[in-house]
Amino acid sequence: MFSGLSAFPITPLKQDSIDEAAYGRLVRRLAAAGVDSIGALGSTGCYPYLSRAERARAAQLAVAHADGVPVMIGIGALRMRDVLELAEDAQKAGASAVLLAPVSYHALTSDEVYGLYDAVTRNLSIPLCVYDNPGTTRFTFSDELHGRIAQLPNVASIKIPGVPAEAAAATERVARLRALIPASVTIGVSGDWFGAAGMNAGCEAWYSVLGGLFPETTLAIARAASKEEATRLSERLRPYWDLIARHGGSLRVTATALEILGLVSGPCLPAPLQSLTGVDRDELAKLIATLELA
Amino acid sequence: MFSGLSAFPITPLKQDSIDEAAYGRLVRRLAAAGVDSIGALGSTGCYPYLSRAERARAAQLAVAHADGVPVMIGIGALRMRDVLELAEDAQKAGASAVLLAPVSYHALTSDEVYGLYDAVTRNLSIPLCVYDNPGTTRFTFSDELHGRIAQLPNVASIKIPGVPAEAAAATERVARLRALIPASVTIGVSGDWFGAAGMNAGCEAWYSVLGGLFPETTLAIARAASKEEATRLSERLRPYWDLIARHGGSLRVTATALEILGLVSGPCLPAPLQSLTGVDRDELAKLIATLELA
Repeated sequence: MFSGLSAFPITPLKQDSIDEAAYGRLVRRLAAAGVDSIGALGSTGCYPYLSRAERARAAQLAVAHADGVPVMIGIGALRMRDVLELAEDAQKAGASAVLLAPVSYHALTSDEVYGLYDAVTRNLSIPLCVYDNPGTTRFTFSDELHGRIAQLPNVASIKIPGVPAEAAAATERVARLRALIPASVTIGVSGDWFGAAGMNAGCEAWYSVLGGLFPETTLAIARAASKEEATRLSERLRPYWDLIARHGGSLRVTATALEILGLVSGPCLPAPLQSLTGVDRDELAKLIATLELA
Repeated sequence: MFSGLSAFPITPLKQDSIDEAAYGRLVRRLAAAGVDSIGALGSTGCYPYLSRAERARAAQLAVAHADGVPVMIGIGALRMRDVLELAEDAQKAGASAVLLAPVSYHALTSDEVYGLYDAVTRNLSIPLCVYDNPGTTRFTFSDELHGRIAQLPNVASIKIPGVPAEAAAATERVARLRALIPASVTIGVSGDWFGAAGMNAGCEAWYSVLGGLFPETTLAIARAASKEEATRLSERLRPYWDLIARHGGSLRVTATALEILGLVSGPCLPAPLQSLTGVDRDELAKLIATLELA
């Protein structure tokens, strides 16, 4: 399950609780489109904003509605005790894998991060994907640390935050990491604007927020017949990538797109996070139409 | 209570639960030393790592052991719903004030942060201190935003992350912020190495981790007879400030100092956070002796 397109949906809220109907609909939509796996409770799924009970429920819902497509569940939390409990809950919910970022408030040291993965992987009976996302965790993995963690039992993939834009540099970056990890551990790219570049550079997987929103569009890139075609299809979305960059990431744009498409019943992010309004929202609606995303 | 020395203790853990005996001891020690207020469940108190029940219990313990010294309780959380619940709990525990940082996983916008303070202050019956700590929250307040938030009801103080090292620049920085906020709102400096410089520059309060660990040493600086004396006493601690900088902040150094002094029964931080060991620990022990901190 750690290759191809892994689609990461939002966990939509309604009146500050999980909108179970909308969530089931989103997950079924991804399964129907034929994504290779579903990443529930990723960053876009707002995992750290939800209570343990909400996260357990979302995991159950994702598995129930995935129609057999393997589901990976985010188990990140500031405290190791909570991560271990969340790993238990994810396994009980029937997850096929877990995704773990070294979430921080006080910035973590490399020894602390290694200690976290060491403790968690020893308590797992399903595979784990290492989630490298310095933008939200403020922890920067060295390749050497990735190499050490990738030797731990149950580690099956590394979700990297992107690759250099230039093709040769991207290939070289993926090869450098690959040389330090076991052959059984895959590398998946994230940051959707890096998706085509990452797969062209040799990443086996694309962990994709766009895939959780517009699965057909994303599958077309992920399964393009050639590197050139993948690049062309991704470059076609340049105005969308630019819009995301202007809003500091995918989250608010994705939530707003779901509102525009009527896939959620209204603002669906946990406060204080807000979706886009006014001209920003209008611009996104126009872009969805122009780029024929929906 | 928003002037003078506010001491911020650790919330010590033992076997992953609050060490209530040690925590009571730490708080009584600060009250006995004569600090002006106690900041329980600040960043050093590891508030975001604790469950709601643990935070309510720590708030009750802090108030119970503070011997009448006013206690401010940190209520920060990623989700507004949780912040509002924590504000309730703090008030029920008998807190004199609350401290709120715009904690983030997805970086917040200025509108989102204003919305958070707007909602929380409308639901409060005790004063609030705005906690500006870009190092842990990754949110940078503009002075303009500070000015808008300081107009909200119940806002009583702003905890700023530091001042420029140079005296004239520090005075200018504090004056620039002061010009934008009501006269009733005080400014408190944090980052202990900035403590003397901040108070010399016109900050009314020093929100201090050192004060939560070595209250007498810190009170001597906070109540020095002259600016020059405050600077001299702070500069005497330069090797300690340097040690903190090398360990990325006060937290691990403070926890280790408590271990060395026997004020906690062993490692007291929530995993995966770790205290210092080996040569780092030995160096700290020597420094505590050399600088006559205990």
